[in-house]
Amino acid sequence: MMGIMRIGRAQLRVMDLDTAVDYYTNVIGLDVVGKEEGKVYLKAWDEWDHHSLILQQADSPGLDHFAFKVEKEDDLSEFEKKVEQFGCTLKRISKGARLGEGEAIRFELPTGHQVELYSEIEQLGTKVGVLNPHPWPDGLRGIAPHRLDHVLLTGEDVKTVTRFFTEALGLYQSEQVLSVDGEDMVGSFMYAANGKPHDVAFIKGPDKKLHHAAFYVEHWYDVLKAADILSKHDVTVEITPTRHAMTRGQTVYFFDPSGNRNEAFASGYITYPDFPTITWTEDKIMHGIFYHRRMLIEESYMKALT
Amino acid sequence: MMGIMRIGRAQLRVMDLDTAVDYYTNVIGLDVVGKEEGKVYLKAWDEWDHHSLILQQADSPGLDHFAFKVEKEDDLSEFEKKVEQFGCTLKRISKGARLGEGEAIRFELPTGHQVELYSEIEQLGTKVGVLNPHPWPDGLRGIAPHRLDHVLLTGEDVKTVTRFFTEALGLYQSEQVLSVDGEDMVGSFMYAANGKPHDVAFIKGPDKKLHHAAFYVEHWYDVLKAADILSKHDVTVEITPTRHAMTRGQTVYFFDPSGNRNEAFASGYITYPDFPTITWTEDKIMHGIFYHRRMLIEESYMKALT
Amino acid sequence: MMGIMRIGRAQLRVMDLDTAVDYYTNVIGLDVVGKEEGKVYLKAWDEWDHHSLILQQADSPGLDHFAFKVEKEDDLSEFEKKVEQFGCTLKRISKGARLGEGEAIRFELPTGHQVELYSEIEQLGTKVGVLNPHPWPDGLRGIAPHRLDHVLLTGEDVKTVTRFFTEALGLYQSEQVLSVDGEDMVGSFMYAANGKPHDVAFIKGPDKKLHHAAFYVEHWYDVLKAADILSKHDVTVEITPTRHAMTRGQTVYFFDPSGNRNEAFASGYITYPDFPTITWTEDKIMHGIFYHRRMLIEESYMKALT
Amino acid sequence: MMGIMRIGRAQLRVMDLDTAVDYYTNVIGLDVVGKEEGKVYLKAWDEWDHHSLILQQADSPGLDHFAFKVEKEDDLSEFEKKVEQFGCTLKRISKGARLGEGEAIRFELPTGHQVELYSEIEQLGTKVGVLNPHPWPDGLRGIAPHRLDHVLLTGEDVKTVTRFFTEALGLYQSEQVLSVDGEDMVGSFMYAANGKPHDVAFIKGPDKKLHHAAFYVEHWYDVLKAADILSKHDVTVEITPTRHAMTRGQTVYFFDPSGNRNEAFASGYITYPDFPTITWTEDKIMHGIFYHRRMLIEESYMKALT
Repeated sequence: MMGIMRIGRAQLRVMDLDTAVDYYTNVIGLDVVGKEEGKVYLKAWDEWDHHSLILQQADSPGLDHFAFKVEKEDDLSEFEKKVEQFGCTLKRISKGARLGEGEAIRFELPTGHQVELYSEIEQLGTKVGVLNPHPWPDGLRGIAPHRLDHVLLTGEDVKTVTRFFTEALGLYQSEQVLSVDGEDMVGSFMYAANGKPHDVAFIKGPDKKLHHAAFYVEHWYDVLKAADILSKHDVTVEITPTRHAMTRGQTVYFFDPSGNRNEAFASGYITYPDFPTITWTEDKIMHGIFYHRRMLIEESYMKALT
Repeated sequence: MMGIMRIGRAQLRVMDLDTAVDYYTNVIGLDVVGKEEGKVYLKAWDEWDHHSLILQQADSPGLDHFAFKVEKEDDLSEFEKKVEQFGCTLKRISKGARLGEGEAIRFELPTGHQVELYSEIEQLGTKVGVLNPHPWPDGLRGIAPHRLDHVLLTGEDVKTVTRFFTEALGLYQSEQVLSVDGEDMVGSFMYAANGKPHDVAFIKGPDKKLHHAAFYVEHWYDVLKAADILSKHDVTVEITPTRHAMTRGQTVYFFDPSGNRNEAFASGYITYPDFPTITWTEDKIMHGIFYHRRMLIEESYMKALT
Repeated sequence: MMGIMRIGRAQLRVMDLDTAVDYYTNVIGLDVVGKEEGKVYLKAWDEWDHHSLILQQADSPGLDHFAFKVEKEDDLSEFEKKVEQFGCTLKRISKGARLGEGEAIRFELPTGHQVELYSEIEQLGTKVGVLNPHPWPDGLRGIAPHRLDHVLLTGEDVKTVTRFFTEALGLYQSEQVLSVDGEDMVGSFMYAANGKPHDVAFIKGPDKKLHHAAFYVEHWYDVLKAADILSKHDVTVEITPTRHAMTRGQTVYFFDPSGNRNEAFASGYITYPDFPTITWTEDKIMHGIFYHRRMLIEESYMKALT
Repeated sequence: MMGIMRIGRAQLRVMDLDTAVDYYTNVIGLDVVGKEEGKVYLKAWDEWDHHSLILQQADSPGLDHFAFKVEKEDDLSEFEKKVEQFGCTLKRISKGARLGEGEAIRFELPTGHQVELYSEIEQLGTKVGVLNPHPWPDGLRGIAPHRLDHVLLTGEDVKTVTRFFTEALGLYQSEQVLSVDGEDMVGSFMYAANGKPHDVAFIKGPDKKLHHAAFYVEHWYDVLKAADILSKHDVTVEITPTRHAMTRGQTVYFFDPSGNRNEAFASGYITYPDFPTITWTEDKIMHGIFYHRRMLIEESYMKALT
């Protein structure tokens, strides 16, 4: 059992669906692949699966749920047991409940976030195809990220949610932030066995909240171009290009029209299951997050949660 | 069973050990971590394990063997069965046969190359450590790659060796090159479930030969700097910076003092076990290898094997 | 008298005007700004003047002429004297002979190339304008260079043509290539007082010929993208991305549909009139041109002249 | 008369000379070329002249003076007349008053800053030399900029100081910031005829003050590396990497140990004397300075002057 392969989708609540679709297609540069009542499905050009982002009309912004893709259909029942053993309530989502998808299981994290696991999903393919492909397609728009990369969430009990992900879901922890006395875990980065520095991460804060959803771009130069594009579209850029020491990735943070924080994230180290967890002490957390400024750049970064 | 995590090491035959050590430390920028009679062990700054490259004094250049690291000690006996079922002769290497390593199994590929699997190896850690790390260390020398990335080998029967890697070792095939009639496989790229586009690849050619050993650098800009550094050290650069359409990586090829081909390889797409295999038709193979030139740049590229 | 500011335009002979316009607009990414019988005028997005490239329908490819813009109208008569003192035959081109231009003077170089000087030209402005401009415009196509950068020509007597440019036209020599005995000048790079490493350069070869016309892109990353775009359009790339030691610029060479060689050129050092001329000895010329390969990469590079 | 070629040097007041030398050599990466009582002379690796930065022991930080290099010795007397015609008091500095330099003229700007013009200075050469040079030297340290690039100063009367530079010194204005009613000039960027977007710039503020001294790096990637290096040395980074719309350059701002602001500045457009001046309206000034954030990132940016 390989288990979880990657974060496969996020469903974001947005307050005006048309405005959101315009932003996620023209500024971020995703493609619309399907529509339902009150929902629009999108994918990035370099993703194989039918969709990675669902926009959902709602009264308030935030994350409806996010989901991991598991390798095999049979993995679902294995995970069902483990999740229930951990004490989480779980339900089955029927095939066809979402466009292009098969059956899923849905449960609540110790932090109150809704998570799903699924295996079956239609593959639309990347825009360059599988036969003698070019390295990138014509007609890209906006930031044009390769993929949905990760979500960062807040929760009261980071230690327990980390234990849930590593024990019940088989993820690995790349980095942790510990209180200076070493007693409390205030940050946690976790990845499936896919080489990424994180598929999901938590920082201590209110339960059920989204800090940001990140899209992957390849280079530091693409981070510059992303920031330029955001300014050309008059999108609010909260944190201008800088480097994380955590993950080593390069970043720019900004907000979608409903106030959900997005990130264009580039580079970052490779991970393997045998790599030790990197530890940050809380007094150095700002070195970890904003390696260049080494202090909180904007108050909003800690407060604006959806 | 997660199984194979990554290519963990390559042992290269070199004709003058001192010259080779000088090149791999000052031009490539690896660090010497240990010595034995006729052998020098090295690692890259961003690798955790004790070593990833062993240089071995020999009468002719080439690849003595390469090895995969598996996640758990128990995986070795599982793989032992599968390798023997496939019909390969296999032997155990005792703990302590190599510096810093535990037990290993060794066998011959259908292409005649020697491969080992191991799980236990001392971890020296990266040069930035695990506590509040900086993104990169001071005192880097030369090209300073992050890691040994992959080897590309030649063999008569690419189809069978691919079947061996996917069936017996559980690797995945990211790309294949088929003859125009679709009958013959003349190229094959394979990866463990680690997000990389390849850990090992084969192109049709004489058995037992090494085409190149590749080291990972992060950016296209690092490929430029690598090429500059090679020229400053008067190292023969065979293929100047360009892009592969296969893997999408960026590359520069050059030779170590014994004539073993090296590559500085950057970027490349992410892989997952559920991704379809990309297919190249043999008439487009040069588009795949040298995306910009779309023809064989240097005759030596096909002929210089060690 | 400031004198010559820059190379302002090149007029290229092309064998099929429609095909050429398609290439220079969609692959290079210039904009058509005007048409006359048998001629199409184009400019790059970041140029101020009315045009920088004129395509001229002809039976054979090559350079009809190139032209320098001088700062003041009065400079023309000053240069007229100097050019005639040097012994070159000269004529006046009337205002209106070209779209958007005023009067010009035209003369033949010692190498047989036709050159013009002009001062008056309509300014269409860059695509980002002069009021609160964005750093780059929307809607760029193809390679989208900033400007025509330089031309490299061949001629029998490089020393004399260099003397003409420095003495009669007031240009400065940034680099020269001398025969090993120091007697003969076989390469020469010259610039106006504008900070560029070259506006025009010569290498020893047949008179009247064009080696290449170069367009400026900003970064090494843009050179990669340029090479990618060329491959996507199936344009012949002669020399894949590499660095010149001469000028330190980064480069990719390719051909327009008529066989005129183009270059996408990035970076390069800054120059000032008080900088010494850099000297290359002819035995190191390939280090200078192809810093990474340090040998002639393609025979065509020396032979394909138009 | 070509006149002014470039900003040639800045003399900074520092409060502890040893600390300052350590910072400017190991973090910025300049080389010490000479010492006098209370002064240390430095140059960047890619500059030809004897020095471009003089550190002067003082009780308070700030800019003692900065200086332009003019092309010819005779230019000095020409400028002497023009400066005096403009009403500035002027004095001659004798040859030998500074290491490696000839005679200079010194005068006070309408903003109270001290400026010098000089022509004669010993040339030490760049670190790569003038014979078959490599594109960059071995042994670079720290940020390793190519050169001193520009200074940005504050003054009460930006319009008059601009008139002084353009009329008396023959500089060109690349960009201006006007009050919304168009009456007042609150920012001004000026360059010599050298292709740079600025050699000196002013923003409205107290007279005699330095906002920053900038060093040139080539690429956006070098800005990332510069910011990384600053963090590794625990230097205060005030503004993390971003783009200016003014000049289009890429930037990171930080402070030397005495509180003088430094910038690592990359890219930026080319300029020519015939280019129109770009105009910013004061309501868009933050778009111009911090193109991504479009607001004042740090209060200190307007207040910390030396």
